[in-house]
Amino acid sequence: MTGITGTLHERWTRKHLLGLQDLSADEITLILDQAEEFRQLAQQGETKLKALSGTAVANLFFEPSTRTRTSFSLAAKRLSADTVDFSSSGSSLSKGESFIDTAMNIEAMGIDQVVVRHKTPGAPLLLSKHLKANILNAGDGTHEHPTQALLDIFTIRQHRGSLEGKTVAMVGDIRHSRVARSNIWGLKKLGARVIVVGPAPLIPDQIEKLGVEVSFSLDRILGECDCINMLRVQFERQRGFFFPSVAEYAHIFGMNGDRLRRARKDVLILAPGPINRGVELTPEVADGPHSVILDQVHNGLLIRMACLYLLARGGRQ
Amino acid sequence: MTGITGTLHERWTRKHLLGLQDLSADEITLILDQAEEFRQLAQQGETKLKALSGTAVANLFFEPSTRTRTSFSLAAKRLSADTVDFSSSGSSLSKGESFIDTAMNIEAMGIDQVVVRHKTPGAPLLLSKHLKANILNAGDGTHEHPTQALLDIFTIRQHRGSLEGKTVAMVGDIRHSRVARSNIWGLKKLGARVIVVGPAPLIPDQIEKLGVEVSFSLDRILGECDCINMLRVQFERQRGFFFPSVAEYAHIFGMNGDRLRRARKDVLILAPGPINRGVELTPEVADGPHSVILDQVHNGLLIRMACLYLLARGGRQ
Amino acid sequence: MTGITGTLHERWTRKHLLGLQDLSADEITLILDQAEEFRQLAQQGETKLKALSGTAVANLFFEPSTRTRTSFSLAAKRLSADTVDFSSSGSSLSKGESFIDTAMNIEAMGIDQVVVRHKTPGAPLLLSKHLKANILNAGDGTHEHPTQALLDIFTIRQHRGSLEGKTVAMVGDIRHSRVARSNIWGLKKLGARVIVVGPAPLIPDQIEKLGVEVSFSLDRILGECDCINMLRVQFERQRGFFFPSVAEYAHIFGMNGDRLRRARKDVLILAPGPINRGVELTPEVADGPHSVILDQVHNGLLIRMACLYLLARGGRQ
Repeated sequence: MTGITGTLHERWTRKHLLGLQDLSADEITLILDQAEEFRQLAQQGETKLKALSGTAVANLFFEPSTRTRTSFSLAAKRLSADTVDFSSSGSSLSKGESFIDTAMNIEAMGIDQVVVRHKTPGAPLLLSKHLKANILNAGDGTHEHPTQALLDIFTIRQHRGSLEGKTVAMVGDIRHSRVARSNIWGLKKLGARVIVVGPAPLIPDQIEKLGVEVSFSLDRILGECDCINMLRVQFERQRGFFFPSVAEYAHIFGMNGDRLRRARKDVLILAPGPINRGVELTPEVADGPHSVILDQVHNGLLIRMACLYLLARGGRQ
Repeated sequence: MTGITGTLHERWTRKHLLGLQDLSADEITLILDQAEEFRQLAQQGETKLKALSGTAVANLFFEPSTRTRTSFSLAAKRLSADTVDFSSSGSSLSKGESFIDTAMNIEAMGIDQVVVRHKTPGAPLLLSKHLKANILNAGDGTHEHPTQALLDIFTIRQHRGSLEGKTVAMVGDIRHSRVARSNIWGLKKLGARVIVVGPAPLIPDQIEKLGVEVSFSLDRILGECDCINMLRVQFERQRGFFFPSVAEYAHIFGMNGDRLRRARKDVLILAPGPINRGVELTPEVADGPHSVILDQVHNGLLIRMACLYLLARGGRQ
Repeated sequence: MTGITGTLHERWTRKHLLGLQDLSADEITLILDQAEEFRQLAQQGETKLKALSGTAVANLFFEPSTRTRTSFSLAAKRLSADTVDFSSSGSSLSKGESFIDTAMNIEAMGIDQVVVRHKTPGAPLLLSKHLKANILNAGDGTHEHPTQALLDIFTIRQHRGSLEGKTVAMVGDIRHSRVARSNIWGLKKLGARVIVVGPAPLIPDQIEKLGVEVSFSLDRILGECDCINMLRVQFERQRGFFFPSVAEYAHIFGMNGDRLRRARKDVLILAPGPINRGVELTPEVADGPHSVILDQVHNGLLIRMACLYLLARGGRQ
C-alpha cells in the first residue's frame, strides 16, 4: 500500500463545492484528475485509504435520495472518514428547529464536511455562510447538482480523452433539471458544444445566453452528437404536465434502437438515472454497447472521493 | 493479534450463497468450521479482523428485518468491510426503477457483496445472473434462508458435537417457512433425521419426498427428538387462516413446561425468533435451560462472518 | 499519535450509566475529567482513537431523536467501536417481540454497550438487570437524561472553572423534564445552588426536597444567576396545556435582550435544544455572546465518548 502519492490537493483552494458555475476549467480538471488517481489506486487494490481518518462527514438530505447519498457515504468510508446520515423525517426539524440551526448543531458534533441536498436553490450557499465545515452541494432545487455533472463529464473524458470540441446533447426536461444546469456550466468551460433538446415548454427562455444551442427535435441533431445525455423524466415534478403523455414523450424524445442506428457509430449514451425504461431509453439502448450508465455510477464514487478529499485537504489551508 | 490463520477459504469455490439445496455436506461443514474459527478468535479477544478491509457489503432488503440485517451488518463490520443499507422504502424503487437496475447500480458503486432479502423466491438467483458481486440470500419468499439454517445447525453441532443420527423436529408452519426448507436441506445432508410437525394445512403435500417424516402431533414425537425447532407463527403471512385460533395452536403445537418434562432430558429447544411468547413457546421454556435461542442469535453473527469471508476469499478465485 | 495516556478509567467501577442520582460527586468529576482529556486529544489532532476497537455499540431508541442518537454514534465511532442503530419502527417490536427480548437479542449479536432511550422511566434499569452489556441511559421518560446534564455541567465548568457555589437556574417545564431532573442531581452534588423557574403548574410539588429553590418569576431571580438553562418547551408533551399560550410563555419565561441586560454581565445562557427561537430564547440571545448552546452540543460528543470509554474500560473489571 502506497496510498495517495499525488499532490493535486496542493493546487486546490476552495472550501466549498456549491456548483460548477463558480469553478474554473482548471479547477474542474483538477477534480477529474484527482478522481482518476483514485481510479488507478483502486485498480491497484487500494480501495481503502487513510486520507480522511479522524474526520467526519454528514449527509444532510432534505429530499429523498438513494444513490447520491449512498455514493457520498461510500466515498467517505473509502477515505476512512466517519459518516452520519440525516434526513428530514425523524430529525429535529419536525420539532420546529430551523434549517440553519440543525446544520450548526450537526457541525458542532464534530462534523468536518456536510453534504447537503435541499429543495431550495441556494440552500448550500446559505449553509456555507454559517458553518465552518466544508459544504458539498448534492442537489439544490433546480439550481445545481455539481457532482452529477462532474461524473458525467469524467465519464465522457474517460471514453473520449477530452471534452474539447465534442458535441454533447442534453435531452429532456431542461427547465427543471439541476443536472442539466451543472452539465452546461461544466461542459462549456471545458470546451464542449452543448445542445439542449426537449419539448418547448421544458426549455427555459433565453437559455442560449448560457452558450448552448436549442433544438426541439432529437432526430434532427442525432447525427451531430458525440454524447447524448438522456435526462430523467421526473414524473414527480411534472404536476402541471408540460407534455401531453408519456407515450408521446417517449416517441419523440426517447432513445431507442432506431435512433441509435441513425446516430454516430461511436455515440455515448449517458443517463443520470434512475432511468424509466421505455421512457427516456428503451432497454435495448440502456443495456447496449453505447450505454455508459453503469460507468457513470461507478465514476460517481470516484468523483465524490475526489471532492471530499480536495475540500478537506485543500480547502482548509 | 494473530488474525485468521486457518486456510479453510482455500477449499471454498462458490461465488454465491443462494441456498442449502445447492451445497454439499462438505461445503456446509466448511462454513461451520469457519464460523468455529471465528468463535475461537473472538474468545481470544480478536473481535475485529482486517480480512475484508477495502471491500464493501450492501444490505438490500425488500422485506422488513431487524435481526438478519443487523447481524449481517455487524458481521461485515467485524471483518472491516464498509457497509451500506438499502430498503425498499426510500430507495429509487419508488421512482419506478426495476429490482435488477437497482442492484446493478448499487454494485456499480463499488459493492463487492450483496446481501438480499426479497419476497419473491429466486430473487437472489436472478441477481447472481446479472451482478459480478457475491450474492448472499437473506431470505427469498418461501424458498430458502440459508444463513438461518446454518446457524441453527451450528448451534446443534456446538451442543451435540455432530448432526449425524440426531433427530430434529421442525414445528409449525412448514408450508410457508423458508427457514424450515433450508433446515431440511442442511440437516439431511449432514445425516440428521428430520420430522416436520404442524397442522395438516401447514404441511406441504409430498414433503416426504425431501426425506423427512411428517407428524400432526407434537406430543407423539416428543420423546424421540434430540432437538426441537419451534418455527415462528407468522401472523402477518396467515391471512387465509390455516388454523382456527392462536390459543388452539399454542395448546396443540406450543412448547410448554408440561411438554418439556415429557421430552428427552437433554432436548435442545431452538427458535428462529422473534418469538411470540405464549404462542410457540411459553416463557418458562424460552428462558429455561433447554433453550438455545440466544446461542442461535450469537452464532448467527459467526455464521454470517464465515459466509461473507468464504465468498469474498474463495468465491473470487 | 500518543492516544489516551490518562488512567482515569482505573478509578471507574460502575457498569451502567442510569442516572446522576446514583453517582457520587467524585464519579461525576471523573467523567468530566475524562471528557476534558478527550477535548485536549482532539485539539492535538487525535480525533480517532483505537480505544474501543473490536467492540460494538447499539443505539436502541424507542423515541425519536436526532442529536442524542447521532452524538452517541459519532462518539462511538471516534473510539473505533462498531455501531448499529435500532428504532422502534422497522424493528421486530412490530412483530410482537417484547422490549427485553429485543434487547437480549441485540446483545447476543455481540453488542458490548447499549444506549437506550425509552418513554418509560426505569427502562434502562430494567435492561441492566437482564443484559451483560453496559447500559447507557439516553433519556427515560421524565426520569433522567444523564449525558445531557453532564454536558451542561461540563460546559459550565469549562467556562467558569468550577460548579462550587455557582447559582444555576433551570427555566421552563420542570415537571416533565428529565433534563432538569438530571441537572438537579448533578449540580447539587457538585456544590451549585439551583433555582427552578416556571409556571406553577409545571413545577412539581415538593421539589424543594431535592435541595432546590423555586421561583415563579424569571425577572425576580435574574440578577442572582451565574448560569441560566432555558429548557425546551416541549409542545408535543403539552397536550393538556399547562400554560395559556406560547406568546404569554415567551413573554414571562423567555430569555430576550431586555432580560439579558438585566442579568449578570458574565451570565451563561444554556439550552438543551433543539430550541424554539422566539419562545425560550430570542435569536438575539441564542446567537449572542452569552450563549454557549453550540459548546453544549460539541461537549456532548466529548461527554459521550467519556461515558462509553469509562464503562467499557472500568465497568468490566
